[in-house]
Amino acid sequence: MSESALAELVEALRRLPGVGPKSAQRMAYHLLQHDRSGARRLALALEQGVARVRHCARCHGFSEAEVCSTCLDPARDAAQLCVVETPADQAALERSGSYHGLYFVLMGRLSPLDGVGVHEIGTASLLERVDDGAVREVILATGFSAEGEVTAHALGQLLRARGLKVTRLARGVPVGSELEYVDLGTLAHALADRR
Amino acid sequence: MSESALAELVEALRRLPGVGPKSAQRMAYHLLQHDRSGARRLALALEQGVARVRHCARCHGFSEAEVCSTCLDPARDAAQLCVVETPADQAALERSGSYHGLYFVLMGRLSPLDGVGVHEIGTASLLERVDDGAVREVILATGFSAEGEVTAHALGQLLRARGLKVTRLARGVPVGSELEYVDLGTLAHALADRR
Repeated sequence: MSESALAELVEALRRLPGVGPKSAQRMAYHLLQHDRSGARRLALALEQGVARVRHCARCHGFSEAEVCSTCLDPARDAAQLCVVETPADQAALERSGSYHGLYFVLMGRLSPLDGVGVHEIGTASLLERVDDGAVREVILATGFSAEGEVTAHALGQLLRARGLKVTRLARGVPVGSELEYVDLGTLAHALADRR
Repeated sequence: MSESALAELVEALRRLPGVGPKSAQRMAYHLLQHDRSGARRLALALEQGVARVRHCARCHGFSEAEVCSTCLDPARDAAQLCVVETPADQAALERSGSYHGLYFVLMGRLSPLDGVGVHEIGTASLLERVDDGAVREVILATGFSAEGEVTAHALGQLLRARGLKVTRLARGVPVGSELEYVDLGTLAHALADRR
């Protein structure tokens, strides 16, 4: 039967997002029965991650150095600053290979219903960041969910008030889509923003 | 951008069963951004689990002691031995509150297609275990999947050859089910085994 170290491992695994009691139990059994080296590796990676990963002083993304390698890259266009919600969004834009400016990672988005206001995300740091004298254009690349739109709207107002050019990612029909399966809101935007 | 400690954490999380690249990234970001104490707790729980959890010498289930508390419980009926595939199955039977004998945990099941034969699961230990002079009845509680049935069949032959009484969990209509939604195989068994 489960005794304390096993029960504690199951409980600790439940702290992972999306992991319920059954999954946590399955994970614990798998690691202890079939992959103890994986368990040791994960323990070490967690310790190292907590000890070494912090936020880049310039873009707020994850970094092991004071300033991350992207922010220090001289090949990047310092006049463009792309604002994203998460490091995963930044990684997606990087994979597209079509952006060569710098980033700012909010590490969140406005969610008034959950008590996440404009001061709870990295707004103050963003406003400080755009005052570096190099940034000319801020590209708001928050999501197109309701919360992402509210975030873009609120940040856009603050940034325009500082005289910056503010743009937003285009909305439209995804590449490879059949029109009949595209939702109405997207089609309406694609029509309005036709070129 | 992701640098080495973060990338290694994502890779290590992918060793968990059912966790793909996207989930691993989401877990890593969540822990580093919102739950560093959870990350530390999980690291410690993994180390403690690997260091302290081993297999009970009698039932083969997880235990921190040489012999687990269930096997040592004098209130349990040593004449009955229930064979299960996993500790999770054992836990489910315990929750039913209707079994008071002892257990043997195979930590697997036969799966000839995957090269898991009768020697790869705990068969030798089981045959040794049932020779303790106390066991009279072995209840085969492997699953009712094809592999669980094959396992029960193979173990049943070996155990009957030793003169033991061998039983299998009853198949039938689950409690609370409407007959019209029960599959045909289950209905056929429920009819054949009617009482």
